Amino acid sequence: MADKLPLSTNPFDDDKLHEECGVFGIFGTPDASAHCALGLHALQHRGQEAAGITALKGDEFFTKRVLGQVADNFTSQDVIDSLPGNAAIGHVRYSTTGDTVLRNCQPLFAEFASGGFAIAHNGNITNAAHLRKSLVQRGSIFQSTSDTEVILHLIATSKYRTLMDRYVDAVGQLEGAYALVSLTREGLIGFRDPLGVRPLVLGQLEKSYILCSETCALDIIGAEYVRDIEPGELIVISDTGMHSVKPFPEEKPRPCIFEHVYFARPDSYMNSMSVYEVRKRIGAELAREKHVDADLVIPVPDSGTPAAIGYAQESGIPFELGIIRNHYVGRTFIEPSDQIRHFGVKLKHNANRWHIKGKRIILVDDSIVRGTTSLKIVNMMREAGATEVHMRIASPPTAHSCFYGVDTPERGKLLAARMDLEAMRDYINADSLAFLTIDGLYRAVNQPKGRDNKAPAYCDACFTGDYPTFLTDQSAQDQNERQLDMIANSGA
Amino acid sequence: MADKLPLSTNPFDDDKLHEECGVFGIFGTPDASAHCALGLHALQHRGQEAAGITALKGDEFFTKRVLGQVADNFTSQDVIDSLPGNAAIGHVRYSTTGDTVLRNCQPLFAEFASGGFAIAHNGNITNAAHLRKSLVQRGSIFQSTSDTEVILHLIATSKYRTLMDRYVDAVGQLEGAYALVSLTREGLIGFRDPLGVRPLVLGQLEKSYILCSETCALDIIGAEYVRDIEPGELIVISDTGMHSVKPFPEEKPRPCIFEHVYFARPDSYMNSMSVYEVRKRIGAELAREKHVDADLVIPVPDSGTPAAIGYAQESGIPFELGIIRNHYVGRTFIEPSDQIRHFGVKLKHNANRWHIKGKRIILVDDSIVRGTTSLKIVNMMREAGATEVHMRIASPPTAHSCFYGVDTPERGKLLAARMDLEAMRDYINADSLAFLTIDGLYRAVNQPKGRDNKAPAYCDACFTGDYPTFLTDQSAQDQNERQLDMIANSGA
Amino acid sequence: MADKLPLSTNPFDDDKLHEECGVFGIFGTPDASAHCALGLHALQHRGQEAAGITALKGDEFFTKRVLGQVADNFTSQDVIDSLPGNAAIGHVRYSTTGDTVLRNCQPLFAEFASGGFAIAHNGNITNAAHLRKSLVQRGSIFQSTSDTEVILHLIATSKYRTLMDRYVDAVGQLEGAYALVSLTREGLIGFRDPLGVRPLVLGQLEKSYILCSETCALDIIGAEYVRDIEPGELIVISDTGMHSVKPFPEEKPRPCIFEHVYFARPDSYMNSMSVYEVRKRIGAELAREKHVDADLVIPVPDSGTPAAIGYAQESGIPFELGIIRNHYVGRTFIEPSDQIRHFGVKLKHNANRWHIKGKRIILVDDSIVRGTTSLKIVNMMREAGATEVHMRIASPPTAHSCFYGVDTPERGKLLAARMDLEAMRDYINADSLAFLTIDGLYRAVNQPKGRDNKAPAYCDACFTGDYPTFLTDQSAQDQNERQLDMIANSGA
Amino acid sequence: MADKLPLSTNPFDDDKLHEECGVFGIFGTPDASAHCALGLHALQHRGQEAAGITALKGDEFFTKRVLGQVADNFTSQDVIDSLPGNAAIGHVRYSTTGDTVLRNCQPLFAEFASGGFAIAHNGNITNAAHLRKSLVQRGSIFQSTSDTEVILHLIATSKYRTLMDRYVDAVGQLEGAYALVSLTREGLIGFRDPLGVRPLVLGQLEKSYILCSETCALDIIGAEYVRDIEPGELIVISDTGMHSVKPFPEEKPRPCIFEHVYFARPDSYMNSMSVYEVRKRIGAELAREKHVDADLVIPVPDSGTPAAIGYAQESGIPFELGIIRNHYVGRTFIEPSDQIRHFGVKLKHNANRWHIKGKRIILVDDSIVRGTTSLKIVNMMREAGATEVHMRIASPPTAHSCFYGVDTPERGKLLAARMDLEAMRDYINADSLAFLTIDGLYRAVNQPKGRDNKAPAYCDACFTGDYPTFLTDQSAQDQNERQLDMIANSGA
Repeated sequence: MADKLPLSTNPFDDDKLHEECGVFGIFGTPDASAHCALGLHALQHRGQEAAGITALKGDEFFTKRVLGQVADNFTSQDVIDSLPGNAAIGHVRYSTTGDTVLRNCQPLFAEFASGGFAIAHNGNITNAAHLRKSLVQRGSIFQSTSDTEVILHLIATSKYRTLMDRYVDAVGQLEGAYALVSLTREGLIGFRDPLGVRPLVLGQLEKSYILCSETCALDIIGAEYVRDIEPGELIVISDTGMHSVKPFPEEKPRPCIFEHVYFARPDSYMNSMSVYEVRKRIGAELAREKHVDADLVIPVPDSGTPAAIGYAQESGIPFELGIIRNHYVGRTFIEPSDQIRHFGVKLKHNANRWHIKGKRIILVDDSIVRGTTSLKIVNMMREAGATEVHMRIASPPTAHSCFYGVDTPERGKLLAARMDLEAMRDYINADSLAFLTIDGLYRAVNQPKGRDNKAPAYCDACFTGDYPTFLTDQSAQDQNERQLDMIANSGA
Repeated sequence: MADKLPLSTNPFDDDKLHEECGVFGIFGTPDASAHCALGLHALQHRGQEAAGITALKGDEFFTKRVLGQVADNFTSQDVIDSLPGNAAIGHVRYSTTGDTVLRNCQPLFAEFASGGFAIAHNGNITNAAHLRKSLVQRGSIFQSTSDTEVILHLIATSKYRTLMDRYVDAVGQLEGAYALVSLTREGLIGFRDPLGVRPLVLGQLEKSYILCSETCALDIIGAEYVRDIEPGELIVISDTGMHSVKPFPEEKPRPCIFEHVYFARPDSYMNSMSVYEVRKRIGAELAREKHVDADLVIPVPDSGTPAAIGYAQESGIPFELGIIRNHYVGRTFIEPSDQIRHFGVKLKHNANRWHIKGKRIILVDDSIVRGTTSLKIVNMMREAGATEVHMRIASPPTAHSCFYGVDTPERGKLLAARMDLEAMRDYINADSLAFLTIDGLYRAVNQPKGRDNKAPAYCDACFTGDYPTFLTDQSAQDQNERQLDMIANSGA
Repeated sequence: MADKLPLSTNPFDDDKLHEECGVFGIFGTPDASAHCALGLHALQHRGQEAAGITALKGDEFFTKRVLGQVADNFTSQDVIDSLPGNAAIGHVRYSTTGDTVLRNCQPLFAEFASGGFAIAHNGNITNAAHLRKSLVQRGSIFQSTSDTEVILHLIATSKYRTLMDRYVDAVGQLEGAYALVSLTREGLIGFRDPLGVRPLVLGQLEKSYILCSETCALDIIGAEYVRDIEPGELIVISDTGMHSVKPFPEEKPRPCIFEHVYFARPDSYMNSMSVYEVRKRIGAELAREKHVDADLVIPVPDSGTPAAIGYAQESGIPFELGIIRNHYVGRTFIEPSDQIRHFGVKLKHNANRWHIKGKRIILVDDSIVRGTTSLKIVNMMREAGATEVHMRIASPPTAHSCFYGVDTPERGKLLAARMDLEAMRDYINADSLAFLTIDGLYRAVNQPKGRDNKAPAYCDACFTGDYPTFLTDQSAQDQNERQLDMIANSGA
Repeated sequence: MADKLPLSTNPFDDDKLHEECGVFGIFGTPDASAHCALGLHALQHRGQEAAGITALKGDEFFTKRVLGQVADNFTSQDVIDSLPGNAAIGHVRYSTTGDTVLRNCQPLFAEFASGGFAIAHNGNITNAAHLRKSLVQRGSIFQSTSDTEVILHLIATSKYRTLMDRYVDAVGQLEGAYALVSLTREGLIGFRDPLGVRPLVLGQLEKSYILCSETCALDIIGAEYVRDIEPGELIVISDTGMHSVKPFPEEKPRPCIFEHVYFARPDSYMNSMSVYEVRKRIGAELAREKHVDADLVIPVPDSGTPAAIGYAQESGIPFELGIIRNHYVGRTFIEPSDQIRHFGVKLKHNANRWHIKGKRIILVDDSIVRGTTSLKIVNMMREAGATEVHMRIASPPTAHSCFYGVDTPERGKLLAARMDLEAMRDYINADSLAFLTIDGLYRAVNQPKGRDNKAPAYCDACFTGDYPTFLTDQSAQDQNERQLDMIANSGA
């Protein structure tokens, strides 16, 4: 694996938040695993480090999970043939290095007394450690460190009798964000947490149904988008049709707003909006809020492009390609001992120096996390001859960690948690720096009045620190740390 | 190799002409091979199927050649350490399937009586078969089917005494296009054919000099662009400095115009022009020549983007992303038996359907070769809801084969060689189709009067059929075929 | 894996019974995993298809399990470094094709509430299916199909409090044969089933102790043989020393007699006897019981060699190499379409034709299972010019399946279960065929009066059908089959 | 390659001379390459590091050459199918580390003006460097460092017209030892040097003919041994039959005597004798010449076994297995830091300690090269409890390098070139040491009067220093070294 670097949708992705997973399930076609592989390929941007498919034929389950990408592992006839049957679920996974081992990859599978059960999960269970501890004390043996396995053991040890009752009993104990797809002999099961933090959509292809994270996974197989699975909705698709229930009390939904800023693919349709158009509107809002005069608007490729187009159209300054991407992967080259300037950045990008020399430029990026890459880009532009470099960010400052299935650095590493605006500007070496306001962002997602602070329409905790669920494990950890601090401070 | 597909700079590259090679040489730094690897990475778009580096330390030559890409093979410390010394040359190669075997990969190496000699070549020798035949009859044993090996044997068997005299004697017998870099104990040698069909530039990084195909390979290592190597110029770089001669009579240069249309990277500087700006000018010329009213200008990614920006700016119609690229490679997925519409195209692209629905669109692409992909794109747009699809091509019709180091399909498969404009429009299912004129193209490359038909400033044989050199092997083959035709027609 | 064939200790191993596992554990040296790798290498003949090591450093467990051999997977510094700590256990495994998947490989590991626990097992639990069914109904989730995992879940769900009490509670529920080594934070645990069917010995190397299947694994690391672990003995080796208990009522031991015939390495010392000398005595018994006049005594290599030497010395007929082994592995060559005689045999052996031509020969082999290979060897000898071929087998006819961790074909495929002696002789095309008597075999293992049929000193079920334990799962299966037969016969 | 160790026919092969090559050619069967793969497998002991096959179908040649063994690379249907046609030649190669690169592997191939030509060679050309220098000066480009390539260039540049005349012209310039098989459109060509140093035999399988190094390669495919190719004989096998000529003056043959001592497989038939029987006679001679009283005769496995059997039968002392070989490969295990005694030896062997303890033993080995392994074996025996260890060597002291295709260490490393008998005995720590006399060896190979010093019947240069050919390159090298010595000594 060492030499093989994951491609990224975002060339400067070293400094981006990462969606941790994508899920896909299909029921009702003899080509289930071939469709599943394609759907996962379309969702690869949601998780590039591991992929897996479980297929079901009759009573038999077939699973292949790998570290690596879909296109490198699920494309041969042999592999597809080894995953037979009319239904399949799949998963792509991003994760921090330590945990990326095969046994943590999904779908997970368990053989219950009632039969086999496979599950794939996008999100994060915020009380998983707490639940796990109880289960181990009861004699459950875990085979992974994945929080998803908790769900399996909760079902296995539930006091209820039928599988569906056990399933509801299990998910009812979970806190956090969870878009789940499961496969059993009784059908394909989908469930989205009551706040609907992570997305899950329903599609149809002739007589088969699909559950997946984004509509782009429907497009690739030619399926129609039917509707979003609603927050708190449990859906079961089987030979007898589609059945939907909402087993828990309804709450006001809080879908993740960052999907619109960066995670989702621009060609997806989410929460009844085109992701591309939302991003263009974000760029236009940014131009209205934080304009500065310049010669060129340049996107930080590729994630900043729709916002940059929106900005350019609103401001009337021409949109130009100022950074050229090398389409060949290459993050690990040996740097010559004479130290190349902007080495890391140059492996994937080059300034379009013959065009930007002598120009005042506006760089548009979707977000800043640590700021390290922003600095490199600004410097690369300056060295190529730009006379002024203005950075415009298509979202508010990212100042808080996400606990709902997004990989965020610890808070202390977030630039916006450490510095004020002027210090950030100085750090990234820009002539000016501006972020979109939170209200501007809400306006772009069809909330014309901006954020309703009493009942916000989205989860925006990464910008506001307003977490919509309990964070049981986090609280326990914080408490431990506080206690340790107290002991440390007590002079022992 | 089977499962591993090369990335392409052009997502729809199934229907593009391919540059067959890129070369890079550096002299005068202990990091020679590390720089060479980086330079080749920046030139990977010129040849994705094989790569090689030869380094020289003292009297010893070290070579590694692979089928595969630079970033997959030349990035470990071990590999770089296995290529020590102060000078190195490298090569990236595209080639048709049958020939891509390791022994055809470059740099080629030979041990002459005078010492070792390595060579890398971009171009094509149009009398290689003829020369090879004579050499074999004299007792030379060839180890490859590459035309480049002919040069080695011509040097080995030359009647002259010194290596440089033998080198000049050898290249003097070549017809065709050849930008060569060679490595000997006496230094780094560069040579560009008298017409300068293929590019070769000189760069400098502190005390070391670089010869390479494009300036983007200088940028990645932080080197300065010095000048183009002139057509017919032989340059030798050694510890005693840089020496340049022109051993053959000068001719009016004919550099390849298609480098500006598609081959070169947009961030390169070629023939004293920014490639990006030329492409924007081409788009603007196209808008002036062949405009049509519409709602959106959409580039066929990624090669059509600069021309589409130029077109949009000239025409005032907004530039929008109508096709979203999947950054993950995937040309080999198993197609489900229920046959997905536009399957092949969808593996790499998706229509931005939520944005283009109900719109009249202008698609801008750089060229059409077979037309098969254009048809798929147009249909994908229509199916996503575009009401009108107008195709605009940023070059004249490609109607003739190239024999100068570019992979072209046999002439009978070129759409423009088979059909007139209306038939082509019908074939690709567009509402309208228009190509840039040859004069428009020349205007964009700083020839304000258009093409000088008596003494054209570029090689444009792929558009005009006007080949600037003898085609000895081709003539022999044609003659054989004509004779076979005569025999066939004589009633035997 | 497909092309890579396991080497075999026995060249004609297609027709041999296979020991299914070997185990090794060591405690008290910083080189624990390096010693473990060597020990497993010495035990490779007990299981060639998979190997694994779990090491323990402080509280952390490190595991590597592979399909393949020790020498191919546990020899690099990297691998050994990835298995740090002062204690380690390891396992080599043979198994039937369907089950050889990584998740069935050992050591198995579980994280109990009390901490980590790793286990490796040689033998077979004859009520594993029965126990597993109950555990799944209680909510235990199994990750393998290995019977060993039952032990983990029995410990996890035991009502007892301390780990050792839970361990004893768990093994007390097992039927069958089980030599176990386990690793916990509290030390290295060894246990041998109350009949001692499978071997387990104790060794010492300076301050560290070793538990392993055979003494040859002590020799390779230079350790001293201390004694055999006794049947029913539970031994715990930790920083506080070695503790031994016998938690269950004692029974008369029944160690496997086939270890002496074939499984164990000739350089091992087992049940207080040299394996090599026992085999020579078996050969001498055979010469006394079943002699025939001939010119040469020829071993079937390599397992027949000690018995052949014993036979030759007792009979006075010269011992000669009549079959030459090709030391290079090669069971998968493509057979030419013109069908080579004795193709399969020839890939590994060749008749020493220039020596045996015109001679009357006695072939000595350790056992006959299906008889297919015996036929090939006899024919190979005849074709090479032997005038008479007499087969002498150094054990009684193998007529019953083993359920104690030995891979035996289903009974119907055992030659001795299908035919009488004359039919067997005819089948293998020998001039004469004779087996050692069961009493002769017992005499060779130091039971001068032969077998005590009321209380046999060994498990000899493969020869006699006298199984020393319950066979719960087997009975259930037989009962199912009988019921199915009854239904089938009832005319339904 | 690093982790993959070659198996060896001789377990203690670290201290053996190595045959450098084996050749095989077959003509006249559609299964040519499948037979060739089998034949090479049977010859694998002659060269374990590389293997290659060239097949000829019509006018087309197909070649696969690999670093590695036949059984790992030439056993799949795909590979055999990729080598179609009615004729094939193959090669196995041993070589010193530096040279084992693919381009040095055989068969070599060249495309002459007259058509393709493939060649495989066992032996060594003692004037290859001299010839190569002339060829390079004439303009020939070498692609390998193999001496065999010289033959190709001599043919390519020969002044003669027909291929056979060119072939004879070429081999007529060679000095040294060369058993050659070649494949051309005109048929299969075999040639053995005029002294017949290296073996080459003719076999027949129905209508096809085989040329190969040893008869064991005929046995594996069921072919009949016809006769040895005679020294100086050129044989051509084609559709028109078999033609044989002797183009050069006849000389008294000098086949290699060491083939009988160690190189050839014991089941081969060479120079009209069974190799096995010669080795037994050698053992018997040794017992007659150098007997010592003891309890056991123990072979050093596996090469010492036939001589040990001969010794035991002649002396009446029982033949026993005192060293047990681990059949699993393992030379690269990490040695624990506490340093295991006889670590290297133990990876492959173990003393049969429970049998040899307290015994006086005679160890029989075929030869001693450096003596390092002999020391380890003697010590291993002592440590296992042997009270006396007597080493008996089944050949005279190996005191001279071989220049005829056998890998010998430089002379200074040969134990017998450095020490007298008593010093050798002391070095290997034996109670006594004795070698067979040169006359005893000749008696065993059917020369009842011993060696005829005026006209020896064999090449025995490794024992006597009496080289039967010129050593042009060696002389040049010696001269250079002498000159350098003179300069050095002259005080410059």
